[in-house]
Amino acid sequence: MSRRSLLQMVGLAAGTTAMYQAMTTLGYAQPSNYTGPIRLEGDPQGAKVLILGAGLAGMTAALEMRAAGYEVEIIEYREKAGGRCWTLRGGDTYTELGGATQEVQFAEGNYLNPGPWRIPHHHYAVLDYCKRLGVKLEPFIQKNYNAYLHRSEAFDGKPQRFREIATDYRGQISELLAKATDQGALDEEVTEEDKQKLLDSLVEYGMLDENYRYVKSDHTSEYRGFETWPGGGLNAAPEPSEPISLDQILQSDLWTWLVEAETTHHQSTMFQPTGGMDMIARGFEREVGDLITYNAKVLSMIEDENGVTVEYEDLEGGGTQTRSGDYCICTIPFSILSQIEHNLSGDKAAVIDSMYYAGSAKFGLEFKRRFWEQDEHIYGGISYTDLPIALISYPPYDFFSDGPGVLLGGYAWGATAYQFNAMQPDERTKWAVEYGSRIHPQYTEEFSNGVSVVWHKVPWVLGCYGIWQDREGDYETAARIDGRVALAGEHISYLPGWQEGAILSALDAVERLHAQVTTSNAGDTQ
Amino acid sequence: MSRRSLLQMVGLAAGTTAMYQAMTTLGYAQPSNYTGPIRLEGDPQGAKVLILGAGLAGMTAALEMRAAGYEVEIIEYREKAGGRCWTLRGGDTYTELGGATQEVQFAEGNYLNPGPWRIPHHHYAVLDYCKRLGVKLEPFIQKNYNAYLHRSEAFDGKPQRFREIATDYRGQISELLAKATDQGALDEEVTEEDKQKLLDSLVEYGMLDENYRYVKSDHTSEYRGFETWPGGGLNAAPEPSEPISLDQILQSDLWTWLVEAETTHHQSTMFQPTGGMDMIARGFEREVGDLITYNAKVLSMIEDENGVTVEYEDLEGGGTQTRSGDYCICTIPFSILSQIEHNLSGDKAAVIDSMYYAGSAKFGLEFKRRFWEQDEHIYGGISYTDLPIALISYPPYDFFSDGPGVLLGGYAWGATAYQFNAMQPDERTKWAVEYGSRIHPQYTEEFSNGVSVVWHKVPWVLGCYGIWQDREGDYETAARIDGRVALAGEHISYLPGWQEGAILSALDAVERLHAQVTTSNAGDTQ
Repeated sequence: MSRRSLLQMVGLAAGTTAMYQAMTTLGYAQPSNYTGPIRLEGDPQGAKVLILGAGLAGMTAALEMRAAGYEVEIIEYREKAGGRCWTLRGGDTYTELGGATQEVQFAEGNYLNPGPWRIPHHHYAVLDYCKRLGVKLEPFIQKNYNAYLHRSEAFDGKPQRFREIATDYRGQISELLAKATDQGALDEEVTEEDKQKLLDSLVEYGMLDENYRYVKSDHTSEYRGFETWPGGGLNAAPEPSEPISLDQILQSDLWTWLVEAETTHHQSTMFQPTGGMDMIARGFEREVGDLITYNAKVLSMIEDENGVTVEYEDLEGGGTQTRSGDYCICTIPFSILSQIEHNLSGDKAAVIDSMYYAGSAKFGLEFKRRFWEQDEHIYGGISYTDLPIALISYPPYDFFSDGPGVLLGGYAWGATAYQFNAMQPDERTKWAVEYGSRIHPQYTEEFSNGVSVVWHKVPWVLGCYGIWQDREGDYETAARIDGRVALAGEHISYLPGWQEGAILSALDAVERLHAQVTTSNAGDTQ
Repeated sequence: MSRRSLLQMVGLAAGTTAMYQAMTTLGYAQPSNYTGPIRLEGDPQGAKVLILGAGLAGMTAALEMRAAGYEVEIIEYREKAGGRCWTLRGGDTYTELGGATQEVQFAEGNYLNPGPWRIPHHHYAVLDYCKRLGVKLEPFIQKNYNAYLHRSEAFDGKPQRFREIATDYRGQISELLAKATDQGALDEEVTEEDKQKLLDSLVEYGMLDENYRYVKSDHTSEYRGFETWPGGGLNAAPEPSEPISLDQILQSDLWTWLVEAETTHHQSTMFQPTGGMDMIARGFEREVGDLITYNAKVLSMIEDENGVTVEYEDLEGGGTQTRSGDYCICTIPFSILSQIEHNLSGDKAAVIDSMYYAGSAKFGLEFKRRFWEQDEHIYGGISYTDLPIALISYPPYDFFSDGPGVLLGGYAWGATAYQFNAMQPDERTKWAVEYGSRIHPQYTEEFSNGVSVVWHKVPWVLGCYGIWQDREGDYETAARIDGRVALAGEHISYLPGWQEGAILSALDAVERLHAQVTTSNAGDTQ
């Protein structure tokens, strides 16, 4: 029986689910560590869970545990939920560590996502919660062949279109490999049977001519772009463009960005929530907002054999409050948790204290018009540069509108992020505009206003994601449940900095805690 | 003075337009044969233009010529405007040559674009008219790394994810080239200075290890996908996946589709009108619909020194009608024009008679649910196959909705299009479902209804676009204006089959005709 006949039979006999399971077995469907909503069976008998932090991990845990019959309470430092799933819009104010306050002046509909800003297609948990929570998604454009690659020392500082560098590099390495293959240099590596297939494939892949050469032609211009583009009517014939030599490309170092969009985390199709990333936070908040105590700064988390007690400072009303529960899921970043009194085990405390948090700086710059579209025909996607701003990303929404529009005017990491840390917001913005104007000279005339977030100065996380000093040695220590407290968040995942990691971490913590509760082994080490 | 300082000075002194012109001169902005709305100066003194065909070429001409002061009348064969800019929705009926009628049963919001279905980012004229006409655009997803490549004889007929074939091919050709370079086989081609840069670039491009090898690892799995994907919580570490050998890829011939999305016509970012391609037709129709006589089958087009006379059959009211004008822009496809009485010059008539029209078959298949998203996580983009359907394209709209959803279930060309031509609609659909089920076994259970258009059977065009027998020899003959008739349409362009070609062709014809009219040289050969 053929595989297909088998599938049809399974499908007809047993319906969709059975066929899908058969498909998975046969290798059609992609495995995932998220296979749909978790099912928590067994009665928690009214056990109460305190959840620290109303980010995506905390709210995921709250949603699922309330549904399973737990009494749930969330304690949150900020005045709103979402954590790093955060969007800044006109009218918002943001005060960073050190006291500098920025008032966002963006026009209606424009925004900056200071934290996560794109969702890979295989982040199934995020996508599924978006669907369950009614969060509308739209395509996020990662790769734009018409965007720029730029290095100050290359091509006299003139930005090059991605499509030209990518096409010419692919063509010329294909030519080199075809030459080596044709001349027999790889006869030990490539069988005689494969040799002609390899050459045929390189002709296709590298746009080579019949002599295995990558040359100026209409054919190569169809990929790299024309000198004169094909038109209509009289005198409409195209003129081919001159390729950039491999030598120039190699020496320019622009090739370092060619595979930026080729990782599974950046491959098309990607998504973003329509209207800003915090639409996900708002979706969760609609479900569990009634469980959240806001403006509550956790001071201590102490567990004993009977339960967990949490003290917090009421940032709004003043004074100290105490909450207790049978269990606790703590999603507070280790950068903060290490400063809070707790009695977690010593080895766990050591891991918490050792985790370093990555820093980055992100800029939202608003311009009077969308000159990147109007003048340069760049619609979404990313230009890369060796300037401290690292990149410029073009908004994948409101295409073709008159403006104003907001660019992600920089996304700096490492040493350059520290440089921006050291500046006040106005100075940071000034530099982002100055750097960006070297790629888009229109900046000078069109800039309107900007906002920036340097993550080491975000008071409630002090960084953008956790970096393990010794992941292999420490991960299980941090992830396992000792007693009555489970830790969760992107830092307890292999997807650091991604919302998917936060949610998967929370789901896993919830499942393990629930198993512990329902087998009445509370207090024992799992 | 630096280039940037110059631009700033220009910008400050003279404003946006001057700076943009300076940018163009300096090479920042991309040249185009469409540089914005045409300006027709000079008074046509009430001259009347007959336009034959209310497709995009005809309506563009009508819009611009009325604006310039002409009296304009459009004669259109069909009951609506748009021509090949056409969308089929639930409730529509379509009768092909031979009399077979299909009633489209798609659910509300679903559609098939039988003709053009995507807009490249550099089709400036189409994009500009969309903006001027208030047509909302959304991203069209061309490249989806999670879609399939499929050949019946390869991998036991099991479809492979694009990302795996693309990554493993890139990695292994990079490894081969690194080996040849490292061993000195290319020392005559690559300078010593470039050699290390080339190796460094191949490590990056090909995801190679420190020994220039493409191996199973977390690093390569970040690009090709993991065996076990990274997760959150305990036991969340990923497992790398095993690459497919170059031998298998070469022999599978799946590499033939790797650069499908790399041409300028298919590079990200692409667009489509929200709601269907004919939103563009509706936009034009809002402007010039009052000029159109519908259901009018042109029988003859005769010019003399005083004007042009057109006879048409009134398909609705019956009988023959006559219209006359001072000039005529004829956008009727040559496949139809060759059957109409006219007195164009003999060499032009010969070109008209010699043009062959490409055929293709396009299928819209509606399914009860969006299984490609729900089961296989394919959101937009295209799977390619060697089956007669050639490809399956996934709708880039209503992502994550429950369904029903419409796939482009086939887009056949050449010999296979002829096979579909020979079938009745029901049989065509049956085969499209049968073929598609070899890639998506869910077809069997989920198929609901379908519609197909084979372009050689579309009564008003008899093909999808014109193919020149001898473009170099014939193009000018067809494009030049003899007397009072100008020809326009995608067939008079170097962008055959693209809406941009139709519009640019019309704009060029309008400009030349207008120059002829306003210099009072009517009747002379331009």
